[in-house]
Amino acid sequence: MNRKLKVIIAPNSFKGSLDAHKAANAIESGLLKASSAFETLKLPIADGGDHFADVLVKALSGQMKKVEVRGPLGNKIQAEYGITPSGTAIIEMAKASGLALLKTEDLDALKATSFGTGELMKAAIKDGCKEIILGIGGSATTDGGVGILQALGYNFLDETGKEIPYGGGNLHKINKLDDSEVKEGIKLCKIKIACDVENKIIGESGSAKVFGPQKGASSEQVNILEENLKHFVEISKNFTGKDLSKIEHGGAAGGISAGLNGFLDAEICNGIDLVMEILEFDKHMPSADIVITAEGKLDFQTLDGKGPYGIALKAKEAGKMVIAFSGNIPPYEQEKFKAFDALFAIEDSPMSLDKAMEDGERLLTNSAFQAASLIIASSKMNF
Amino acid sequence: MNRKLKVIIAPNSFKGSLDAHKAANAIESGLLKASSAFETLKLPIADGGDHFADVLVKALSGQMKKVEVRGPLGNKIQAEYGITPSGTAIIEMAKASGLALLKTEDLDALKATSFGTGELMKAAIKDGCKEIILGIGGSATTDGGVGILQALGYNFLDETGKEIPYGGGNLHKINKLDDSEVKEGIKLCKIKIACDVENKIIGESGSAKVFGPQKGASSEQVNILEENLKHFVEISKNFTGKDLSKIEHGGAAGGISAGLNGFLDAEICNGIDLVMEILEFDKHMPSADIVITAEGKLDFQTLDGKGPYGIALKAKEAGKMVIAFSGNIPPYEQEKFKAFDALFAIEDSPMSLDKAMEDGERLLTNSAFQAASLIIASSKMNF
Repeated sequence: MNRKLKVIIAPNSFKGSLDAHKAANAIESGLLKASSAFETLKLPIADGGDHFADVLVKALSGQMKKVEVRGPLGNKIQAEYGITPSGTAIIEMAKASGLALLKTEDLDALKATSFGTGELMKAAIKDGCKEIILGIGGSATTDGGVGILQALGYNFLDETGKEIPYGGGNLHKINKLDDSEVKEGIKLCKIKIACDVENKIIGESGSAKVFGPQKGASSEQVNILEENLKHFVEISKNFTGKDLSKIEHGGAAGGISAGLNGFLDAEICNGIDLVMEILEFDKHMPSADIVITAEGKLDFQTLDGKGPYGIALKAKEAGKMVIAFSGNIPPYEQEKFKAFDALFAIEDSPMSLDKAMEDGERLLTNSAFQAASLIIASSKMNF
Repeated sequence: MNRKLKVIIAPNSFKGSLDAHKAANAIESGLLKASSAFETLKLPIADGGDHFADVLVKALSGQMKKVEVRGPLGNKIQAEYGITPSGTAIIEMAKASGLALLKTEDLDALKATSFGTGELMKAAIKDGCKEIILGIGGSATTDGGVGILQALGYNFLDETGKEIPYGGGNLHKINKLDDSEVKEGIKLCKIKIACDVENKIIGESGSAKVFGPQKGASSEQVNILEENLKHFVEISKNFTGKDLSKIEHGGAAGGISAGLNGFLDAEICNGIDLVMEILEFDKHMPSADIVITAEGKLDFQTLDGKGPYGIALKAKEAGKMVIAFSGNIPPYEQEKFKAFDALFAIEDSPMSLDKAMEDGERLLTNSAFQAASLIIASSKMNF
């Protein structure tokens, strides 16, 4: 071994145990304890959900700004968005319109609005941002993005000319659309949505039917939301010149992708690809020998374009060795996991999930240490 | 990679889950699924305890022979010993005088005798064996080997000239020793004891005080056994010309090592070194690239000369890469575990001990697959 081994450490968070930065530190610590041959670059990642803004803002040396906005049910809450030195806004929808902001008993799929997310976007544009990166994971809403558009100045008027109330449950009342109050800066702002789902806005695999139940919708409410989104699609056709029901990935976050693409030409991006673009993986990848990723649980959901799988595909494409650490690893027979050279579960003995989460840092460091030690030992063998 | 990677697979059993052969098969299966570059040699091991005879007899293409003997409390039981084609007997003490033969409520540390083990030895010698390999783990006895010696023809007589009854609780009655009935074949037979403990026969770290309690001795009984062993040591001095209390490792299996060394010049061997000698590790090691070992639990007990640690030391000495798999691995900071290049826990998610034991084969195969994949991937990197 005549040179340093360059390693990109790009973990997702271990939900409930370690955020992505702590996970990256734990892995780095294991590597450096195993050998001084490793040279590490930490690029903690996020998919569109948890910690999206925190991770990207930190990576880009930006800062968070607090804004009072309408929460998912219309009440005022304190939210925040990030702004980078180059004037890009990083907005995590869950901070203003997230499922996690509500107690289970307060879930109201008909009333939940994306208005607060729109307020964050408006604040960012007012602060001079010309580009918005929007993470939409964990939303409580099924309003097609109408709440966001309302916050940005669009009017959705009922038969009497009054603004319709918040929530997907009221979309059937839309009778007329008006964008005369929408400021030029808003229309000019470049919006990129980090999106992880394949679903369209309506239909059997649409946002209401697939994601409605986890947002608290009864089966009757799912049907109402589906009908209302259909109405929204219909009435938007003439106004936007687009058929929102045809937009790929349009069903993300209750139809936000479709709404923002239709009305504001928002670009719908694969979440992890967008994150990798922002973190400049293309710049860093060529000189790396090894790419390490990680996530609390690696399973078939991981393959739906989620963080670690995207990292693995990109690294493999570049001919790099890819390792992943996780609290749960899938059976090795799974063809699709072959983008990973090796997968290691972090548990060091039989233990409960609670114990594994509590001890996440130590376990991840240990697991990284062992894998790193094996890499070094393998490299010393002459074969 | 221009040649095969030669791997010695030498696991111990995973107690309660996999015997050493199944463990070796599971590891081999993981390696071969990862790459056809591996060429494997399976040498499952045993320390002096569990499966000692089975493992060695299988390795040496020997066969087991059934013998009716006295069990630990004197009742008749069916036991067995192994005999190899070259006429070496492999005897596992636990099969005749083992703790596992008794229910907890039947434990009787004062009465437990090694007589049945002596009967196995006698049967082997009668069958023509000139060498006996004796594994002494898991014994129920604290009789200094007097039971074995009685079975082989030695007389331990009380004041009235009667043979003393079974068990360490009766050693104080020994008044006179007589070997006139011991056959020549017995005295000429070469005995090798596979021993894993450091303790001497008497004293604060002696066999009664350290191992008595786990054999069911109350603190009062521990004191009785200690005094009785002292008496045995004293009265043996003139007869054997040796001070049994000075014999290193003499306290193994309730003083068996001391007794058999004193009376029959048995050689006390480090258990795993003896096993490796029998399995011809010295012949196989030079051409190996990697040595893999494993055990249900790797902890500080592992460092007391137990199987995997002995394997690791020998392999390291020969400059080989050493990997271990286990249900439990120790913290990586432990200096002493540095004989291992890498240690992997087999769990693939949070799980109970029961689940890990039930799924041992699958988990071990998966773990071996992942480590093997990492070795192959590492070998493809140019560093």
